[in-house]
This record gives sequence, C-alpha cells and structure tokens, in this order.
Amino acid sequence: MITSHQNEKLKLIRKLAERRGREREGLFVAEGEDLVAAAEAAGCEPVFLLRAGVDVEPDLLDGVSSLGSGSRVIAVYEERFSDPGGDLSVYLHAVGDPGNVGTIMRSTHALADGPVVLGPDCADPYSAKAVRASMGSIFARPPARAGFSSLSGNTLALDARATLPLAEIEPPVPPMVLCLGAERDGLPEEILAAADERARIPIRPGGPDSLNVAMAATAALYELGNRITRP
Amino acid sequence: MITSHQNEKLKLIRKLAERRGREREGLFVAEGEDLVAAAEAAGCEPVFLLRAGVDVEPDLLDGVSSLGSGSRVIAVYEERFSDPGGDLSVYLHAVGDPGNVGTIMRSTHALADGPVVLGPDCADPYSAKAVRASMGSIFARPPARAGFSSLSGNTLALDARATLPLAEIEPPVPPMVLCLGAERDGLPEEILAAADERARIPIRPGGPDSLNVAMAATAALYELGNRITRP
Repeated sequence: MITSHQNEKLKLIRKLAERRGREREGLFVAEGEDLVAAAEAAGCEPVFLLRAGVDVEPDLLDGVSSLGSGSRVIAVYEERFSDPGGDLSVYLHAVGDPGNVGTIMRSTHALADGPVVLGPDCADPYSAKAVRASMGSIFARPPARAGFSSLSGNTLALDARATLPLAEIEPPVPPMVLCLGAERDGLPEEILAAADERARIPIRPGGPDSLNVAMAATAALYELGNRITRP
Repeated sequence: MITSHQNEKLKLIRKLAERRGREREGLFVAEGEDLVAAAEAAGCEPVFLLRAGVDVEPDLLDGVSSLGSGSRVIAVYEERFSDPGGDLSVYLHAVGDPGNVGTIMRSTHALADGPVVLGPDCADPYSAKAVRASMGSIFARPPARAGFSSLSGNTLALDARATLPLAEIEPPVPPMVLCLGAERDGLPEEILAAADERARIPIRPGGPDSLNVAMAATAALYELGNRITRP
C-alpha cells in the first residue's frame, strides 16, 4: 500500500498531467472504472494500476486525480498511434479543444472504420480530458498523426461556406477522409483548395453560424458512413 | 467602478453559480464576449453587465468567474423558457450532464425548428457549463420544460437496442419529437413503450456500445431534419 505522495508511481502520474511529461514518457493516465474496463476490452495492459484503499491510500489517489475527489482507480498506459487508413476516416486540422478531439474519436470509432488523423495544432489526444471524452475509444481505435498532404484517398473538406449540402455530394468512393478545421476558423484556404470535394452541413434559417466541430464531424460521419455502407 | 467583493452585483453572481440561487432569482450568468454577443443578437437585454477594468476591478471579476482568471465580461440575464412545439424538436429524459444539454441545445438550434424540451432529472440548462456549451443558442432558442406524456406530435425514441436503423424509418410526419434518455441508461421502458416509433443509430462492427448522447442527438437531428425538409 502506497502511503507517501513521494512514491514514484504517484510522481509519474503527476508528471503525466502535463503534455510535455506525456511526450517524454510516451505514457498517459486513464481514470475511473469505465476507462479501465474499455482498455481491458481493447486488450491494452496498464503499465500499472492503482486502486484506492488497495494499492494506495484514497487521499493520495485523490491528490493526483484530474477529477478531484472520489477517484477509485487510476491506471497508466503506453501511448499508441495508428497509421492513417480505412474506408472512412477523419482528419483534424488545429482542433484545439481536447474535449472535441476526444468526442470525435468516440464518434469515429462508432461510425467509421478508420482512425482520427491529427494534423498540426490539435489538442493532445492523450490529455485527461480527451481520453475521458473518448469514453475509452482511444484504446480501441488509437489516433494517427499526419499532415494533410500525406493523406491518401478522397478528401472531403467540411466547410460552413461551401455551397454543396453534404447530402448532395456524389456517392462517396472509399477510401474517404473527412477533413475538419479549427473551432472558430475552419480549415485553412490551402486545404480547402486542395481537397477533392467541399460540402457543408445545412443550418436552418435563423440558426447559428456554425455547429460545434464535434457535432459537425458526427453528423458528417453519420451521412458518409451510411452512404459508403449502403451505396 | 466596483472595488469591493461585497458589492451586491458580485454577490448575486456568486449566488447564481448554484442551481438553487438561479431558481430563486430566475436569473443566470453568461460569461465572455461571444455569449454576450449571442444574447444581443437574439434581442436579450442583460439585467446588468460587468466589464473588467470598466465596471469592476479585473481581480474581482475573476473572483466570481466560473472559468477562473482572464474573464473580460460577465452579464446576468433573465431565464426564459419556451413552450414545446415546432415541426422537429427534442425531448430529453434524465440527461444529467450540463455539457450534453448545452450541446444538444446548439445542435437543435442549428438543425431543427423547435426547442429542446427538458423532462425530469435533466441538468439545469442555465448552469454555466450548459450555457457555454450552447454557444449562445440558449438565447435564440430557449428550452422548454414538460413531461413526455404532455408532448404532442409523433414521438421517435432513440434506443440503442431498437432493431430499426434511423435511416429506415417511415418518412417523418411533422410535428416530430426526437426523444433521448440518460447517458448510461437510455430512455425508461414506459417511454420506449409509449413512443410512436423506436430506432437506433447503427454502430459499426467492433464499435463502442453507444454514442455520447449529444452526438446521437446531432446525428438523428441531421437525418430527421433532412428528411422533413426534403420529403
């Protein structure tokens, strides 16, 4: 039973709260029974796992928790990255909110067969917030890292200013990569110009300027996934 | 210029951080220039508005901020609720996460013409987190409050265990109410039994058990909105 906050495992967990610490160690933290179960279901073994009252004093575990009090289990895993690919995948450019990155990993796991490919300036998919928002999908479908120019397949840029509604694009030919940009600025001009197609999700009259990027990704994956599966 | 944290406006903002305080006062807080602009665009006048360095000392404003430091503007508004209605609206049962409630308000504003109707045990739509997640849509499309049995129109229950994929339902006849349940438990049996239709969003083989409830709502609104608009 760990009884000192100077314990090396607790020190490591504190270090992994920072992006630099995670990048140096190649490790990340998952917290809570649901995430640990998702890791196990995906065949990911923890480097170590600490249970409150079993392996470590509960107060000490709370002290390294990203959720505050009441943490029952915290585990450390190796970061894994996959390669771009699949009939349907997602490319993110400068999506900076870790909750959005995590949510898009979840939706992609549910609605597509490829990974989320992280371009420049995206939030760290292995931050506590992204891992939590992925609801464990980060274990089953690890993200990839690549620039837009290295993607292969048909690229579809989602762009609020495009004229074509997503439902009216030509039947998608796999492999297809759905591309989305930053929360506020969307995709940069060079990607919009280079993409094979551009389309928008139609917003109702009187509606807002835009959807949250995770919502836009999910609606688009739903549409494309249905059309790729049932042409 | 407010220079004391005992100021009545600052006291009120602190009180409105709690659900009980909001319910007693019928007021809520919106923080940040984007939300204040969204309120203005929707024609909602603040009860009062505090700008850092203009109306209040910046440190004092940070002290009542739900975001921590760096807050530039905080405004207080009257809570408003609308009535159920519209050709397409959303009913939520026991959706307890304020981020999900706020996100669904945003998607509903973008993809449907009716409000989000809050059934029992939902998160407070006027909590700081829900207001922020709504990205201001709470001003343009205030939520409604009603029980399932008081809804009129065709009710469609989204249910991960339903056999029918959403894309294969009969053409939707407005007014249509999309019904979603709690993050983990879904809709209760009595609502599933009473709904006019049940359908699911198909998950890929090897995918997760479920989508995040806000993602499920968004994909379903996208599908139904498209089909109601273009029968």
